[in-house]
Amino acid sequence: MSDATATIPDTSSATAAEPRWLDLEEQQTWRAFLSATQLLMDRLDRQLQHEAGIVHTYYEMLVRLSEAPDRSLRMSDLAASSLSSRSRVSHAVARLEERGWVRRESCPTDGRGLIAVLTEEGFAALESAAPGHVEAVRGNLFDQLDVEQVAHLREISERLLEHLTATGAVSPVPPLPAPAHPAAAERTAS
Amino acid sequence: MSDATATIPDTSSATAAEPRWLDLEEQQTWRAFLSATQLLMDRLDRQLQHEAGIVHTYYEMLVRLSEAPDRSLRMSDLAASSLSSRSRVSHAVARLEERGWVRRESCPTDGRGLIAVLTEEGFAALESAAPGHVEAVRGNLFDQLDVEQVAHLREISERLLEHLTATGAVSPVPPLPAPAHPAAAERTAS
Repeated sequence: MSDATATIPDTSSATAAEPRWLDLEEQQTWRAFLSATQLLMDRLDRQLQHEAGIVHTYYEMLVRLSEAPDRSLRMSDLAASSLSSRSRVSHAVARLEERGWVRRESCPTDGRGLIAVLTEEGFAALESAAPGHVEAVRGNLFDQLDVEQVAHLREISERLLEHLTATGAVSPVPPLPAPAHPAAAERTAS
Repeated sequence: MSDATATIPDTSSATAAEPRWLDLEEQQTWRAFLSATQLLMDRLDRQLQHEAGIVHTYYEMLVRLSEAPDRSLRMSDLAASSLSSRSRVSHAVARLEERGWVRRESCPTDGRGLIAVLTEEGFAALESAAPGHVEAVRGNLFDQLDVEQVAHLREISERLLEHLTATGAVSPVPPLPAPAHPAAAERTAS
């Protein structure tokens, strides 16, 4: 009720400003962007499901764990680093645990917390999925753009990321990779 | 801390062609793009759920229906125009039908087919959700970029879209399981 309504125009007021509708060019840009990102993510999902049996968001969680000290992260940190909600991470970790790729342990420094640990099998699965995944990312993104376009894409993405993290539910200046901590948003959502 | 190359597991065996791993700059570009798009879509979802009780993909389906002649589309055309699988569209339409925003009718020209029709209530819901949604798209995307960046974003998106649509139908990968929606996952769960 509090924060969210601040960004939403008051439509009940008769004096509310006219919505800033997108003009034709903006609409075309927005739809191309939406469609391209949706198709790209679907393509990456299909490739990973075909080769490794997991969707891209699960793959990214395995990557985050593989980069962490002792290949383990508190569930809350895994959620933050993968920009997911706690509930989505819990669901994903449960699925990955069924395959023996991740296991949950109680946190040594915090009896109430849980940590997710990448198993040897999980690391092997990641190693085996990585070449096909990177080829899909190259073939469907980097190979399609020239050097300038890649630079533009980075500039645009970093600008948007800066805005989105600054206006997210938590810290205005989060450390990179800069989660907007959806878990906090969930707590205040209802 | 771990260097960025840790994104890609260190593979010691090099039997097949060496994968074209991303270099550091490419990794940073890819991660910024992934995070920005994910946070943007989450932001739009949250805004729409808050105001209209639906996620962004459902909103987009209502938009497609609102633009179609007689505000109706065959289910297969709705799937194609919203870049979704048939099963995802069926699931979405069932949810929207529960609210009275869409109804399904048998197709007049094809007895086996079904068409989805936007109801008056659905059109009214769309009208009422649109101002808040467009403000979220403006505030989180267009307002953050200058004119040149918007032009670059369009150019990049159209290039990727051209590639993804051109390679979509002729993918060597077999037509794959419609990415996990909960109902499908449940059916195959045990």
